[in-house]
Amino acid sequence: MYKVDLNSDLGESFGNYKLGCDEDVTKYVSSVNVACGFHAGDPSVMQRTVELAKQNGAAVGAHPGYPDLQGFGRRKLDCTPAELKAYTLYQLGALDAFCRENGLKLQHVKPHGAMYNTIAVDEARAIAVAEAIAEYDSELIFLALAGSKMVSAAEKVGIKAASEVFADRAYMPDGTLTPRSMPGSVIKDTDEAIARTVRMIKEGVVTAISGEEVPIMAQSVCVHGDNPKAVEFVRTIRERLEAEGIKIAPIREVIG
Amino acid sequence: MYKVDLNSDLGESFGNYKLGCDEDVTKYVSSVNVACGFHAGDPSVMQRTVELAKQNGAAVGAHPGYPDLQGFGRRKLDCTPAELKAYTLYQLGALDAFCRENGLKLQHVKPHGAMYNTIAVDEARAIAVAEAIAEYDSELIFLALAGSKMVSAAEKVGIKAASEVFADRAYMPDGTLTPRSMPGSVIKDTDEAIARTVRMIKEGVVTAISGEEVPIMAQSVCVHGDNPKAVEFVRTIRERLEAEGIKIAPIREVIG
Amino acid sequence: MYKVDLNSDLGESFGNYKLGCDEDVTKYVSSVNVACGFHAGDPSVMQRTVELAKQNGAAVGAHPGYPDLQGFGRRKLDCTPAELKAYTLYQLGALDAFCRENGLKLQHVKPHGAMYNTIAVDEARAIAVAEAIAEYDSELIFLALAGSKMVSAAEKVGIKAASEVFADRAYMPDGTLTPRSMPGSVIKDTDEAIARTVRMIKEGVVTAISGEEVPIMAQSVCVHGDNPKAVEFVRTIRERLEAEGIKIAPIREVIG
Amino acid sequence: MYKVDLNSDLGESFGNYKLGCDEDVTKYVSSVNVACGFHAGDPSVMQRTVELAKQNGAAVGAHPGYPDLQGFGRRKLDCTPAELKAYTLYQLGALDAFCRENGLKLQHVKPHGAMYNTIAVDEARAIAVAEAIAEYDSELIFLALAGSKMVSAAEKVGIKAASEVFADRAYMPDGTLTPRSMPGSVIKDTDEAIARTVRMIKEGVVTAISGEEVPIMAQSVCVHGDNPKAVEFVRTIRERLEAEGIKIAPIREVIG
Repeated sequence: MYKVDLNSDLGESFGNYKLGCDEDVTKYVSSVNVACGFHAGDPSVMQRTVELAKQNGAAVGAHPGYPDLQGFGRRKLDCTPAELKAYTLYQLGALDAFCRENGLKLQHVKPHGAMYNTIAVDEARAIAVAEAIAEYDSELIFLALAGSKMVSAAEKVGIKAASEVFADRAYMPDGTLTPRSMPGSVIKDTDEAIARTVRMIKEGVVTAISGEEVPIMAQSVCVHGDNPKAVEFVRTIRERLEAEGIKIAPIREVIG
Repeated sequence: MYKVDLNSDLGESFGNYKLGCDEDVTKYVSSVNVACGFHAGDPSVMQRTVELAKQNGAAVGAHPGYPDLQGFGRRKLDCTPAELKAYTLYQLGALDAFCRENGLKLQHVKPHGAMYNTIAVDEARAIAVAEAIAEYDSELIFLALAGSKMVSAAEKVGIKAASEVFADRAYMPDGTLTPRSMPGSVIKDTDEAIARTVRMIKEGVVTAISGEEVPIMAQSVCVHGDNPKAVEFVRTIRERLEAEGIKIAPIREVIG
Repeated sequence: MYKVDLNSDLGESFGNYKLGCDEDVTKYVSSVNVACGFHAGDPSVMQRTVELAKQNGAAVGAHPGYPDLQGFGRRKLDCTPAELKAYTLYQLGALDAFCRENGLKLQHVKPHGAMYNTIAVDEARAIAVAEAIAEYDSELIFLALAGSKMVSAAEKVGIKAASEVFADRAYMPDGTLTPRSMPGSVIKDTDEAIARTVRMIKEGVVTAISGEEVPIMAQSVCVHGDNPKAVEFVRTIRERLEAEGIKIAPIREVIG
Repeated sequence: MYKVDLNSDLGESFGNYKLGCDEDVTKYVSSVNVACGFHAGDPSVMQRTVELAKQNGAAVGAHPGYPDLQGFGRRKLDCTPAELKAYTLYQLGALDAFCRENGLKLQHVKPHGAMYNTIAVDEARAIAVAEAIAEYDSELIFLALAGSKMVSAAEKVGIKAASEVFADRAYMPDGTLTPRSMPGSVIKDTDEAIARTVRMIKEGVVTAISGEEVPIMAQSVCVHGDNPKAVEFVRTIRERLEAEGIKIAPIREVIG
């Protein structure tokens, strides 16, 4: 039977600032990535978000980012691998405290924004993050861009990785994401996005923006909960995947 | 046999800013309180400080504070008990990540500065911090001002507390510290400070600034490592306590 | 002819976080208080907000707060008067840079949240803020809670103050605001709020929560733009005040 | 008569953290670059630093940096030109508030660390910073790496630039600084450093690390005040330059 995880970034509010439809999107996903206070989130938001995930039965992962709240972790910051490792350890521990408070086991780690993009291609920094994960808890899963340096770093340091794909993004012939600056980088048609996702899951293939067929491993599908329309897409893709005989399950059950 | 812990605040550097003679003072204390990135410290500093404690065989505790780097956590910030609980959980987890990296078990928690002063007298907030500790790990020790609301809060939530005294501070008749703004609040003479400490440990009594004899429980003595002179005092008090037949041991062995 | 200023807090967004209906509320107010990056706002937000005020012909004031983004400047932080003075100078200058960029003259200063509440009653700190304003530009107007220490501090250091009232808040017999924790502290009925405001402007009197008639000076009315309903109230109160023969004008014209 | 400015970075302390021998180095330099609270400095430190400059008769400039206190502004942060412009305006205004408090006129702007290095080579970002300076006050002087994009950006937007050289750094054949990672990048011999500086000032030439003679314009010499030894170098270079008939004067007098 086919299985896949649906993951979404949550807990991105901060103090008086509210962001995202966390209450709604949590109902439809199997894993949530919780911001850890560097690029978004604060201790109270993290606490509420972990409780929310628990109530909805979603598995919890850490979503560490660069220490850049003003840039929402989306601006490249030139950290050393040693700094990245320390930043990752700090944020994993901080989030895990709320899992412990709630009697939950932290499932996975998915870096955010510019940190994610950097370690997708920078081997030394991908290894630094993988080491942080391994030294914190070697059973944690590294949720990684399919085919990237993150996957090979996980293998190298001996932790499990799960390959993440994007339902609404175009791919390059080498399996990387088409940059948002290129025309056609975002798949706006719901039916097309879902059909592509089904094919990635069942056949392990995606049609690149250039028309070529590219092999891809889809263990977790990233979806968004920024606004009601995005949440509606999540509800729809979940239904359609299930109708296709694909079971939605937390990452640990998918990569089992 | 008499036993006491010597504790000191460490890891208070931040980025390019260096503070404290951590390398020196770690040699003489049995427990260190490591800043957790809110009032001082950053992930890289925390990592180095935990490694340093490990090398010197000192037990590691978390030193959480208010999120006020500019004020070094010394300014009262009007947080709710719920915020304090979340802040404490966050900081405990963050520091513990570096203990896990180093194969160490976190021993204790000692709040910093204005947070310490607030929960010494504010029961609801003392309980909030004690609950955070209990829910994170019920074996952690709450290092608390002797005779304060922290001690009763620990009892109430069912965790262990250790009573902290200050070698160089005068006490009020009710057992609280003489405010620094009052004349005579700081004991500047080394011999007098040490003699008072020995008496607190052996007899459980201290002479208040008013001349009265006040009962006090001394399980851990707070010492400083801000400058070479302070470190010299730590070396001296350690020698003199040992010469008095008092064993210096980590908190967990003292309250065993 | 009666004149009054309508003021509103703007520019409270931060990075990726959007707050307030700034575009809408700016159309109806005569003065805007722009957050300066401590409790809310960032340089890019400040720049856009000053441009928006310019486009709508609203006068610009600085809205300095405590350095506590996480608490939105609403938590009391125990600063010294000297710190408050330096914080105020810093924030005035920072905001004024965007006024200079836009060829505007900064009109006024209105402290935010917990800083406002503190200096309403704390004379030393009110004077510290007033001195910062005076030393920055002695023509700036201190927008101050009617009848508070801010008003007397302005007088003492020799700068102009404008007395601010709240349309939707109840008052105590001594002229201070009824704390939000008390029942009846917020006037929810639009007609009642407007009628009270008209009376404050025309007669200089407000009925306290206790039923007594209290003298009050109303030179500027604080209104909110947090949500579409709040903006609708601002549009309504503006129309009704004008229908009552009260001219809406920037503070400098009101106190002229 | 030969004239040159000696400039140094000051006001890099933060809260409880002290950095630099500001009191000593201010005696020997003619211009100081004051950190503005983003990469270093806080409002109280800025206030004290401007007062110190005033007491010693040194001209005051702003030293804006990236919003990265943890990295001391030395890590490249991928800001847009628009963000850089807003950041620069904000910091200029903030510092200028303390100049106004002290009756001083802000003389110049020298970006810090990674921001300086970026705009030395990135034309769009150099122009963004130059525009911020021009729009804040078109009489401000842009203190710029000799021969860099900063100099051409100043020319393009119509503000004055002053060319900065480094006494203790080697140069490449194209006039840029030899990266610190290359052997020989730092001139450690005091006599050699001073002789090179004299030649840059009098002849407008420096011997590059490759042995070639490179034309260079030296209007301001950057010196450091991090430690007593550095301060001693500043005292020495000042004496020796004066003995060579070179007058030490603030930038505005040098570029006249």
